[in-house]
Amino acid sequence: MIRGDLIGSSVLLPYEVDISRLAGCGLKQEGGNVELSLEEAAYLLERKRISVFDREERLDLREFINRASSLRPGFELKFLVYKDIRERGYHLRAGPLDFRVYPRGVRSGEGESRYIVHVLSEREPIKTDMLLKDLNLSENIKRRLLYAVVDEEGDITYYEIKKGNLKGKTSPFDLSGPIMGDILDERVIIWDETISRGLNEKWWFGKVINDTSRLQLSFVESAYLIEKGSLTITGTDGRILSLNGFIEMASAVEKDFFNKYIVYRDLRDRGMVVKTGFKFGSHFRVYDRVPDRETYHSRYLVHLLSNKGEVWPPEISRAVRLAHGVKKQMVFAVLLEKRVEYVEIMWVRL
Amino acid sequence: MIRGDLIGSSVLLPYEVDISRLAGCGLKQEGGNVELSLEEAAYLLERKRISVFDREERLDLREFINRASSLRPGFELKFLVYKDIRERGYHLRAGPLDFRVYPRGVRSGEGESRYIVHVLSEREPIKTDMLLKDLNLSENIKRRLLYAVVDEEGDITYYEIKKGNLKGKTSPFDLSGPIMGDILDERVIIWDETISRGLNEKWWFGKVINDTSRLQLSFVESAYLIEKGSLTITGTDGRILSLNGFIEMASAVEKDFFNKYIVYRDLRDRGMVVKTGFKFGSHFRVYDRVPDRETYHSRYLVHLLSNKGEVWPPEISRAVRLAHGVKKQMVFAVLLEKRVEYVEIMWVRL
Repeated sequence: MIRGDLIGSSVLLPYEVDISRLAGCGLKQEGGNVELSLEEAAYLLERKRISVFDREERLDLREFINRASSLRPGFELKFLVYKDIRERGYHLRAGPLDFRVYPRGVRSGEGESRYIVHVLSEREPIKTDMLLKDLNLSENIKRRLLYAVVDEEGDITYYEIKKGNLKGKTSPFDLSGPIMGDILDERVIIWDETISRGLNEKWWFGKVINDTSRLQLSFVESAYLIEKGSLTITGTDGRILSLNGFIEMASAVEKDFFNKYIVYRDLRDRGMVVKTGFKFGSHFRVYDRVPDRETYHSRYLVHLLSNKGEVWPPEISRAVRLAHGVKKQMVFAVLLEKRVEYVEIMWVRL
Repeated sequence: MIRGDLIGSSVLLPYEVDISRLAGCGLKQEGGNVELSLEEAAYLLERKRISVFDREERLDLREFINRASSLRPGFELKFLVYKDIRERGYHLRAGPLDFRVYPRGVRSGEGESRYIVHVLSEREPIKTDMLLKDLNLSENIKRRLLYAVVDEEGDITYYEIKKGNLKGKTSPFDLSGPIMGDILDERVIIWDETISRGLNEKWWFGKVINDTSRLQLSFVESAYLIEKGSLTITGTDGRILSLNGFIEMASAVEKDFFNKYIVYRDLRDRGMVVKTGFKFGSHFRVYDRVPDRETYHSRYLVHLLSNKGEVWPPEISRAVRLAHGVKKQMVFAVLLEKRVEYVEIMWVRL
């Protein structure tokens, strides 16, 4: 059996070792030795391909794992993911995030890697800054980005993360108004039949109340029409509400209304049709055009990440799983200073 | 057309009106007049069955709705739900919560009602106190409980709420130990093969690492086994961890660990098998026995409500929709002072 020595936080094998017989593990160093990462060493030790010594003490698997775990925080998580990806038939090695994964059949270092993998615990919030940084890295080095999330039982869920590119095909909004609306508790009502039908048919604003001619608008829809200069709303005191006045009023009914509106406006300005995603537990369901009544299927669910700057893995798991079940793409919206960034997260089986 | 008069917050019709011709609306008062609730009046006014006067001013639908809305907060929501339930073919009237709904074909007041309905906005948190109070009421008067949640576009989702009665069939836990375990970052490893297989096969504790004999336990599983006196865990400093010491350590890794553990323990003590629900975005997936490998389907998802004492409707929507999609029952756990209460929430089509 090949003897390895635990030095610092790697395991060194003697220079005469044939690296091609190490199951894709190891990196030839300049000095001629072969260096194994802690994950690779644990993997080979578990398969009884090497023995590992710390000076003259021979370590069994238990001792080695305990030692590696205290040598490097996060070793346990990374080893679980390393093993899992190996057992799914891929080669991988240390990479710009945690690992670089090669396409099936390609041994590490022999061709181009396909993914970069970031290992995460379900118990740690994901910072949106980090998410965007990882995404930029992935674009720059042209590798797909995977998040490997380890749950409390050590099972791993893989998510592919992409920049969302949402572009719709509705006509630019050009109804000049004036449209008059009444506020009713949590919605706005437009009583003019012609205008109601126009707004609804051309851009799918609001909901036509079935047996009458009135149109019921949500608050985000109303704010958008006010901002476009088409809708005039009279408050309960008889005065016309400004956009700011309306937003203030809506924010009293719904916390976080303003941020939600920013995303709504951005999506509408991109030519998408945006409706509530309440039934799917997301902020919006989004269509790339006004749907024909037969093909009534929204392509995206869009959920605004809270402005705490982080998101918990169970939130992602829930949203992505739900979207997958209803055949929609799950997109998270991140509010940046001057624009909205869209991040699509997909559940993938490796 | 029948003339109604808006008096206080109801509409009165003259005593000679034939109540059987009011589409199930109205209540005969002692004085002989027929009283309509604001929702009933708006419903009949929209259908042009009555006219409504405020003193000598005749109100059109728009004026009446605006007036009703300022007379009674929440009128808009209640009217949306009233109309929706009517249009689905049911009779209803004011009830102990918001409405009492009769079985299809039964007119209001002519037979026993089936549901009591509470009208909610998706924008208001639901207090867990209120939820439990509504549930008790529903049990006491033997009527099924529906929550009608109105989303921002005025669409309504109906949830039936029931007390969850979770009882499982696993053998009582009787492994006395001592079992020795090592902590590895976020999990516990048991290295003894016989014990590992026993724990896993009889009660489905932990996960057997595929090609070796070790068992990987989650923190809640470990805490349970420590509390039962079977598991002994040695900390990194070489000292044996007490249950409290272990819980403290786990709580540092996972906020809210303790509350989650209380629910885990309660479910295990009820003979259920409890595994992580991470892939479904819930705290636990729960089986009523150790499943045969073929019928590997958990019946419940259990999610602990945060101890803020409230839950937001979008959270419920998300969880219930997801559970529905994977054919599981969604159960929320509420921690009370001395016990755990389970509340099952189902999506229903009326």
